[in-house]
Amino acid sequence: MSLIIIGTVAFDAIETPFGKTDKIVGGAATFASLAASYFYDKTKIVAVVGDDFPKKDIEKLQEFGVDTEGLQIKVGEKSFFWSGKYHNDMNSRDTLITELNVLEQFDPIIPESYQDCEYLMLGNLTPQVQSTVIKRLKNRPKLIVLDTMNFWMDIMMDDLKETISMVDVLTINDSEARQLSGEYSLVKAAKKILEMGPKYLIIKKGEHGALLFHEDKIFSAPALPLADVFDPTGAGDTFAGGFIGYLAKVGTINFNNMKNALIFGSALASFCVEKFGTERLLELNEEMIEDRIQQFVNLSLFDIKS
Amino acid sequence: MSLIIIGTVAFDAIETPFGKTDKIVGGAATFASLAASYFYDKTKIVAVVGDDFPKKDIEKLQEFGVDTEGLQIKVGEKSFFWSGKYHNDMNSRDTLITELNVLEQFDPIIPESYQDCEYLMLGNLTPQVQSTVIKRLKNRPKLIVLDTMNFWMDIMMDDLKETISMVDVLTINDSEARQLSGEYSLVKAAKKILEMGPKYLIIKKGEHGALLFHEDKIFSAPALPLADVFDPTGAGDTFAGGFIGYLAKVGTINFNNMKNALIFGSALASFCVEKFGTERLLELNEEMIEDRIQQFVNLSLFDIKS
Repeated sequence: MSLIIIGTVAFDAIETPFGKTDKIVGGAATFASLAASYFYDKTKIVAVVGDDFPKKDIEKLQEFGVDTEGLQIKVGEKSFFWSGKYHNDMNSRDTLITELNVLEQFDPIIPESYQDCEYLMLGNLTPQVQSTVIKRLKNRPKLIVLDTMNFWMDIMMDDLKETISMVDVLTINDSEARQLSGEYSLVKAAKKILEMGPKYLIIKKGEHGALLFHEDKIFSAPALPLADVFDPTGAGDTFAGGFIGYLAKVGTINFNNMKNALIFGSALASFCVEKFGTERLLELNEEMIEDRIQQFVNLSLFDIKS
Repeated sequence: MSLIIIGTVAFDAIETPFGKTDKIVGGAATFASLAASYFYDKTKIVAVVGDDFPKKDIEKLQEFGVDTEGLQIKVGEKSFFWSGKYHNDMNSRDTLITELNVLEQFDPIIPESYQDCEYLMLGNLTPQVQSTVIKRLKNRPKLIVLDTMNFWMDIMMDDLKETISMVDVLTINDSEARQLSGEYSLVKAAKKILEMGPKYLIIKKGEHGALLFHEDKIFSAPALPLADVFDPTGAGDTFAGGFIGYLAKVGTINFNNMKNALIFGSALASFCVEKFGTERLLELNEEMIEDRIQQFVNLSLFDIKS
């Protein structure tokens, strides 16, 4: 039994009001698998890099227990590279450079040892690549989580909707939920999106937390108010990785466990933004995570006796 | 012992994507006192209207147990009038008309029977009028809550800061907290604002809920996701009225009761926006409020066993 995460393993160059990096390691699968590794020890990735990707960074993932057999290394090709600059509010950013490189022809190969997949996280990629992974698994996983973005809604909505129809959980942000549904109210948007296939919808609202919709139930997870957001890159992927990693650990899918998974995902994401790139995710331990969860408890819980 | 609410009693004309009203009854003190009346039966208002204000609408407040002895009626003058138009997202609005009328020379007279004031809600008005009310009370109330807005920060920041230094709780929205403190991070903003005098700071984030700051503690109250927001006018005043009305009812000021007060205020505000003006606030009952509170419990509560 395992958790498979598909997504990018890549280079980022990031500029924020706090500083600037050269090319550092990033990518959705990197952030998500590191986050998941804190909860679940059978996390495996499917991704592609060029031979410019440092061996030591692949070994770093392996040190965290991440199985990289499904990470293809394309000789003579270059890894995906994204460069962006965040504005002062840290909520908006400009993309400076996107070099697809190896991603242009990415054919996600599933190693035979991955066929025990029970939990599948489809990180943001073309909808066809995402659906291909589902089709190449001999048994449908117990839980499929899909992350996507407005870019695919703009250029290939039909393909995206087909992929959405195949999954159990969809994670998007509030403006994407509005774009996908054509509804401004998130309650109405969620109702329409849940009719497209997924049984659960997570709407990410950044510094305002996240909403979980299932049937007629709603859960609101707060975001931890932070004094400093150093670099938001990868926060959404870290959230998704922590979310599915926690669910893989507890092994039972229900609304209560989903709620907790949202809190664990939010807690991991709150660490992620404290340093550049994956830096913070590499130095956590169980006690730090428990302390952070306690902060979420203190932040959210109230006790009304009527 | 009583709760005094000072603020406007006025006319509004509102346009939203759902419809348009003629002049209807509005004003901060109207919304706040109606909300408070559901929790506390010794709610008194200090306000001013012209003789154009319908007697039946004053009687309506009285029916809700609101003491209107401090409501001055200026013969030959006109009531405050505001007209606004909400944009499609309902989060932003344009002011079309502001006629100060009786507000221009508002001298808040405190009836002798109001001198038992224990809880004081200073609704949005000029900072001088707000501080005058504090000075005219012979005994300092047990709890003073101040609501204000960016308008006063733009034109009389020094007066506003003096009034802020005299109160226990300040309620403002997120952009106002940033303007008042000069800090983008709400955590840093709250730290600075709590050094200005108030022991508690509530940052209202509209559809994203509200944050309560006290010493080094933070509580995040969710907003109830709604399918339809019909008219947001008065939601902030309703929140404040429900908040202080609940505290007046329980009678003990501590962080836990403040948290609950935020939830009760948010619940009342979630009703307010369901119809135009005060319409919805006039038709609530205890059972409806309890049901709504239960929705907030379901929305927020999770149970993590580590």
